[in-house]
Amino acid sequence: MLELFIGNKNYSTWSMRPWLVLKAFDIPFQEHFIAFDDFHLDRPFKQSILKINPTGKVPAVVNGDLVVWDSLAICEYLAELYPDKTLWPSDLQLRAQARSISAEMHSGFQMLRQLCPMNIEADLSTVGIKLWDEHQGLRDDVARIEQIWAKRPSGESFLFGDFSIADAFYIPVVMRFISFQLPVSASGQAYMETVLKLESVQQWIEQAKQEHQFVPVDEPYRKAP
Amino acid sequence: MLELFIGNKNYSTWSMRPWLVLKAFDIPFQEHFIAFDDFHLDRPFKQSILKINPTGKVPAVVNGDLVVWDSLAICEYLAELYPDKTLWPSDLQLRAQARSISAEMHSGFQMLRQLCPMNIEADLSTVGIKLWDEHQGLRDDVARIEQIWAKRPSGESFLFGDFSIADAFYIPVVMRFISFQLPVSASGQAYMETVLKLESVQQWIEQAKQEHQFVPVDEPYRKAP
Repeated sequence: MLELFIGNKNYSTWSMRPWLVLKAFDIPFQEHFIAFDDFHLDRPFKQSILKINPTGKVPAVVNGDLVVWDSLAICEYLAELYPDKTLWPSDLQLRAQARSISAEMHSGFQMLRQLCPMNIEADLSTVGIKLWDEHQGLRDDVARIEQIWAKRPSGESFLFGDFSIADAFYIPVVMRFISFQLPVSASGQAYMETVLKLESVQQWIEQAKQEHQFVPVDEPYRKAP
Repeated sequence: MLELFIGNKNYSTWSMRPWLVLKAFDIPFQEHFIAFDDFHLDRPFKQSILKINPTGKVPAVVNGDLVVWDSLAICEYLAELYPDKTLWPSDLQLRAQARSISAEMHSGFQMLRQLCPMNIEADLSTVGIKLWDEHQGLRDDVARIEQIWAKRPSGESFLFGDFSIADAFYIPVVMRFISFQLPVSASGQAYMETVLKLESVQQWIEQAKQEHQFVPVDEPYRKAP
């Protein structure tokens, strides 16, 4: 069976993506949790993950002798293992577009990432107002995300109609938007509501809230839960 | 015919990747050059590229009505258009590994990227010695790249035997290593020699050196060519 190694559900956007894909497409897997710490080489997180994944990062998928790492490469691997489940849109052109926006998220949106780390259990709305006011780059990132979401076929649909890997890449953004209460258009709100109805998303959020692990390096804005 | 929009060959690592793939696999395409400037919204680069690609970035591929952007998504699209050319390794497990290291490059190696931008025509060896001495993060990035390269099947081979998309993702790194004269092991040197023998790589380097366009925002270390 596929084994997925992930970090804290409250903080780890990269872990969230393949986990959502596995759950939403009903792919059996065994989940392994490696708790975040300060990520120093001699501490448990790195000691554990380096035994599995040479990058020293989560997520990683192990399938027998094979190790696959990086959320995007894992999702591509899953799409190849389960071609009938259409993890990417089945149309070649839509698939190319889905990959374009997923790869864009994979390497981009640095300001949003840096300023608004995922923190599902936190209410950072006060911080969000200040950040929004002060950072044009953050407003630009959100505007581009809204532009991407607005291309979906209908207000209630996922980005390419049915749920796909592309949605899994944008759902951690939804988590950030909620924690920091960033201003989102009515259309953007509708997309957020669509993804929040997914059972896999609800499960992840619930489990994140039950973790109760405060990781200081992932908490630029709080001193305690 | 496929149209590829790229930036300056001297500086644009992202442009280099799909260009190399297209050339190395002998895929016909029309090349469009958009000269780098200071990337302000009202200047020619953004004005030109935003007419084609909503991200305002290069590279982008246009095929009829379809626009595909981001170097990784473009390479995946090319792999789908030309399945017989095996742009990725043909073995499922090797392909998953090739995607893992390509995605790792796509989102990682921030210190190398930030400190040692690609600048093919420049000799930045003096800067390189200083950076190497001062930045553990840079040494860590290079060590990880060496670890990845060392997994290739033989000293003279590409990363997965024959040339693949994974090599195209690591060739801009070779350019950085050369400009900054970063210390590389004998095994790493052998890989660099292998890729430098590729006709497509030689063409890119030659054309980069003929550009003679000095772009200040891409020149943290020089005041003039």
